[in-house]
Amino acid sequence: MYFASDNWAGASAQVANALLNAGNGSVPAYGADDQTRVAVDWFSEVFEHDVSVFFVATGTAANSLSLASVMKPAGIVICHDVAHIACDEAGAPEFLSGGRLVSIPGARGKLTPDALAAAIARYFPAAVHHGRPVAVSLSQSTEWGTVYTVEEVTALAAVAHAHGLKVHMDGARLANALAFLGCQPADITWKAGVDVLSFGGTKNGCWCAEAVVFFNGKKAEDFGYIRKRAGQLFSKSRFVAAQFQGYFDRGHWLDNAYHANTMAKRLATGISQLSTARILWEPEANEVFAIWPKPVSARLKAAGAQFYEWNPDGLDETEKPRDDEDLVRLVTSFATAAHEVDHFLKALGK
Amino acid sequence: MYFASDNWAGASAQVANALLNAGNGSVPAYGADDQTRVAVDWFSEVFEHDVSVFFVATGTAANSLSLASVMKPAGIVICHDVAHIACDEAGAPEFLSGGRLVSIPGARGKLTPDALAAAIARYFPAAVHHGRPVAVSLSQSTEWGTVYTVEEVTALAAVAHAHGLKVHMDGARLANALAFLGCQPADITWKAGVDVLSFGGTKNGCWCAEAVVFFNGKKAEDFGYIRKRAGQLFSKSRFVAAQFQGYFDRGHWLDNAYHANTMAKRLATGISQLSTARILWEPEANEVFAIWPKPVSARLKAAGAQFYEWNPDGLDETEKPRDDEDLVRLVTSFATAAHEVDHFLKALGK
Amino acid sequence: MYFASDNWAGASAQVANALLNAGNGSVPAYGADDQTRVAVDWFSEVFEHDVSVFFVATGTAANSLSLASVMKPAGIVICHDVAHIACDEAGAPEFLSGGRLVSIPGARGKLTPDALAAAIARYFPAAVHHGRPVAVSLSQSTEWGTVYTVEEVTALAAVAHAHGLKVHMDGARLANALAFLGCQPADITWKAGVDVLSFGGTKNGCWCAEAVVFFNGKKAEDFGYIRKRAGQLFSKSRFVAAQFQGYFDRGHWLDNAYHANTMAKRLATGISQLSTARILWEPEANEVFAIWPKPVSARLKAAGAQFYEWNPDGLDETEKPRDDEDLVRLVTSFATAAHEVDHFLKALGK
Amino acid sequence: MYFASDNWAGASAQVANALLNAGNGSVPAYGADDQTRVAVDWFSEVFEHDVSVFFVATGTAANSLSLASVMKPAGIVICHDVAHIACDEAGAPEFLSGGRLVSIPGARGKLTPDALAAAIARYFPAAVHHGRPVAVSLSQSTEWGTVYTVEEVTALAAVAHAHGLKVHMDGARLANALAFLGCQPADITWKAGVDVLSFGGTKNGCWCAEAVVFFNGKKAEDFGYIRKRAGQLFSKSRFVAAQFQGYFDRGHWLDNAYHANTMAKRLATGISQLSTARILWEPEANEVFAIWPKPVSARLKAAGAQFYEWNPDGLDETEKPRDDEDLVRLVTSFATAAHEVDHFLKALGK
Repeated sequence: MYFASDNWAGASAQVANALLNAGNGSVPAYGADDQTRVAVDWFSEVFEHDVSVFFVATGTAANSLSLASVMKPAGIVICHDVAHIACDEAGAPEFLSGGRLVSIPGARGKLTPDALAAAIARYFPAAVHHGRPVAVSLSQSTEWGTVYTVEEVTALAAVAHAHGLKVHMDGARLANALAFLGCQPADITWKAGVDVLSFGGTKNGCWCAEAVVFFNGKKAEDFGYIRKRAGQLFSKSRFVAAQFQGYFDRGHWLDNAYHANTMAKRLATGISQLSTARILWEPEANEVFAIWPKPVSARLKAAGAQFYEWNPDGLDETEKPRDDEDLVRLVTSFATAAHEVDHFLKALGK
Repeated sequence: MYFASDNWAGASAQVANALLNAGNGSVPAYGADDQTRVAVDWFSEVFEHDVSVFFVATGTAANSLSLASVMKPAGIVICHDVAHIACDEAGAPEFLSGGRLVSIPGARGKLTPDALAAAIARYFPAAVHHGRPVAVSLSQSTEWGTVYTVEEVTALAAVAHAHGLKVHMDGARLANALAFLGCQPADITWKAGVDVLSFGGTKNGCWCAEAVVFFNGKKAEDFGYIRKRAGQLFSKSRFVAAQFQGYFDRGHWLDNAYHANTMAKRLATGISQLSTARILWEPEANEVFAIWPKPVSARLKAAGAQFYEWNPDGLDETEKPRDDEDLVRLVTSFATAAHEVDHFLKALGK
Repeated sequence: MYFASDNWAGASAQVANALLNAGNGSVPAYGADDQTRVAVDWFSEVFEHDVSVFFVATGTAANSLSLASVMKPAGIVICHDVAHIACDEAGAPEFLSGGRLVSIPGARGKLTPDALAAAIARYFPAAVHHGRPVAVSLSQSTEWGTVYTVEEVTALAAVAHAHGLKVHMDGARLANALAFLGCQPADITWKAGVDVLSFGGTKNGCWCAEAVVFFNGKKAEDFGYIRKRAGQLFSKSRFVAAQFQGYFDRGHWLDNAYHANTMAKRLATGISQLSTARILWEPEANEVFAIWPKPVSARLKAAGAQFYEWNPDGLDETEKPRDDEDLVRLVTSFATAAHEVDHFLKALGK
Repeated sequence: MYFASDNWAGASAQVANALLNAGNGSVPAYGADDQTRVAVDWFSEVFEHDVSVFFVATGTAANSLSLASVMKPAGIVICHDVAHIACDEAGAPEFLSGGRLVSIPGARGKLTPDALAAAIARYFPAAVHHGRPVAVSLSQSTEWGTVYTVEEVTALAAVAHAHGLKVHMDGARLANALAFLGCQPADITWKAGVDVLSFGGTKNGCWCAEAVVFFNGKKAEDFGYIRKRAGQLFSKSRFVAAQFQGYFDRGHWLDNAYHANTMAKRLATGISQLSTARILWEPEANEVFAIWPKPVSARLKAAGAQFYEWNPDGLDETEKPRDDEDLVRLVTSFATAAHEVDHFLKALGK
């Protein structure tokens, strides 16, 4: 009953096998090999666009170096209060980009165009003292398990671009968002105004496959140097390339995400039907937030369930757990089995 | 005929299989899993010491963050003129550590205690203007394919420690050095005075397996934060752990290195017997430096050989190639086949 | 009618004369001169403590390098939402310290022990992902013109120290706070738990006289290097030393501050007696916040008054200006004349 | 007998008086005042060019932020082995610019076009591993008291520009170079190819007056942010502006430099006539390097002379002092008196 995080799973069989088969022969290092070229072609096909793709080691690196690529001196990146870059990356975005984050609230983990516009407005007229906004970063799907619609991303990007800001998307769980939206990857990224994307494969079936994707080659110009200087240029690039090939092949990545989302739905539906617990809101991706009496948490853990209590900061007062309740986060993944969900629901329902 | 670099090979079968088998089940992320614990135990056993081990993504990251761990404001790291950190890491050591490198010459890629002492002496008496040396970094084996003896490392470390400097070893090719020296890993590291080690597995049979090893727990204190802030903390840590398990199991790593060194020896011996070429010096690890008439390089490449012309800067005048000659570097690896060497020698001898 | 900022004034005659007299003879550079020693002795006398003092060029530098001196990898400094370091220093604190700021709200520009404790609590139990709080920074007086009492600083410092955080005080307007409190400099700094202080002379009568003051020599150890590496070590140190000598001599600095505070009081009292305007709260230092109908601002500016409209973010709803009103900040200084205040009040009252 | 450095002197009377007169009235802070505008106009007049000027606190800051303004990720600045930025600024250029310095030798402290071209050539063809040269930095006058001719600067700039590098000039002692060359400031800067200049006033009669001068407005675009983020934006900008006004007025700065150079010449000539000492070469600016028997140094210091023994690294073997000799540096300034020189010569000649 593993619902702690989607990075607790290993690699999917399809990805693991692709990697196993990648090792033959001697090929150029540092990404000048054919397998890397093929993987990059996959990206261009998936996004229906001629993209520039750079593999990096972690989602934190993808985010931080994406932001470094659009940074200017005294630059500011605007993001949501619960954005991964703001809360869970130990200052790497600031350290690696040289910039600063300014976070703003928003219901259910989403920025709104109005709030973004207001946050930007504080820096105009420009004054060196305040620094200057250079980008907005959106998490898709969000840390609260919700998903921006195409219209929402488009509207946010319009606000950003109108003021000269670039749009970064933290796509650590982009696949889950796509599985929910049913749109094409292009629709929710460059067509909606995204300039640079952190594309995550690790949480959704890979061992270690993260990429920074530029939809405009010019912006990628310096990135080779940015990546190398950060110690993020793999010598045996094909080990990531192979994973991505397995990941994209025959829609495996979307299948994985669809499965994870389905398991989240199953979990949420099950919880909703119990009198002992409730869900915070309908899951859109692969994260379910549930509220139950505090003793339940301990009981479930004793029964072997893995999950984290979650910080309710930023929720509306009406949404927050009572003092005698826990808010918990339950994450499903490509590896979550239906019987695992059912077993959990049974334990919860007792 | 692949002699361009030891990072052109893929993963060894033993390492690849270890990785294939690592994926089952759901385990804690970020290194809190059993496989990571087992891999760390391997390190302590290999080094006969209770070590602190941190996986990172690349050799550049291992070096840069090792140096970050011993850095102070206005700190200086002394290294050899041809050190990888000085020449091939795009400023990552400076960027990630906040310090500065000062490089000094030395025959055959090695620092000498006298040269090190002289370099340090320039910073005493201390003055803020000049910064302050905080560490010396040794490459073992060196960029010129030579290997420091235990006595040499011990003497260098003694000079460093006498002036309050820490000793870092860039062990991207430590295995090759050990295969040459025939000593224990402990002998050439902590027993000789090394404080922090970049331990490389990637060039010698892994896909992506690099670690920073501290021989003194206290110095490792901050390292979890240093690594995370640099975007170098893998979520699925076991994918590195599994590689290291396969790497260490039954002496696989030393077998690989011994093989690579043997192939280098075979190559060097073969070249020595030809009238058309000469070797710069006897290889000690897995790199052969050869000199031959310029037209030979083109002819060999046309025949399918892969290698790099090398910069003779820093060689003694008597060692340097003549104007009509090329200096080339030939690197062997665990994957180099004897017939590949022989085929190359035959092509060279024509 | 200059109420835009206390840095619009020049230097006081006493400070200017001290500087004029400082230039004779040739003395050692970089702070090894007698005048610097005398100025440092002034600090120790003023603070009744053996302090370490380092001159720097600006208040931003003093704050940023103070924080650098207590920084650790992935370190976080907690401050108020309107702190100068958070809003007006263009990311210098992050850039120069390598750390990150987390800001929290608090009535009238002040942090409270409870809010501080809650902010710290989010980082325990420790996890590398979140970074780690290393310091709290207090502004004394605050950006809202209020002053922490000795009890308040003591209580905040107790919370900070209990969790291993250092206490930094941004004393750009420390003199004004002292003039309000009537306590000794020691009482509100090291005796109350302050570890490192940005001591500002520029706003209160100097041209350029800012210092970082350590109350514990050990913490100052690295600071010479930190300052030099930031390009903040003056060669002709005595030009700052002379200003500080003039500043401290015969209580000049406190006289200046007392005068500025008195002018603020005069301004506030005058505004309170008018029907056309109101003050936000009683000024404690040298800043008055007033609210009046929007047309008034333009009229006053046309009459030659200098001041800034101010951002009401963070005020209680009951305190905020109505939509047809402006919130303005009026700052007095050592150079503000009583007739200037009266002239302004007359113009306002029309 | 003060020959330790030209920063041991105070401010000249003309500069000190200008500063004394600067303090009247209340004016906008942060450089938006008339006196700053007037000072900037002085620069444009002096350089016969529409320049962008930014005051900073120190020469180290001027150099470091100049380099920051032309930096790119993984960028390298090429400079001379004895450049101030390489030897005496504690890593500030690297810290504040994010780049790396690569230093090369050259007789008498000067870079040569051939050596520069060779240094640049090592980075082509481009490879991320090696970083990339973005600028060359020239010291005018040099650390060895020599002066680049207009032809020399022009030739170096041509090499730099041909490879896309910018040209930075460290003009901490530019005035002394101009006094030697007798050319116009424009001739040796923008007309010769200099893109950005560190203009120093401190060593030549000011208290604290350093500026970064851009000869191309576009390159200055980000500099306001770069300066503020480094804590180098003075609030009371006019205190620097006033010094520069006094400095430029009626050619005061060139008079000062001419005097310093003349004193150096007098010193060198005097030493040349003694049998007990010799000069390394004819001084071109305000620094004399002399060689004499070791006991002489102690004797002179006992007699009240102030100077530094100097490191002979980088000199030709024929130029170096013998083991029983000291190499010393003697620096003159605007404040050096002829009788001081004569007194010193007398003491030396005993």
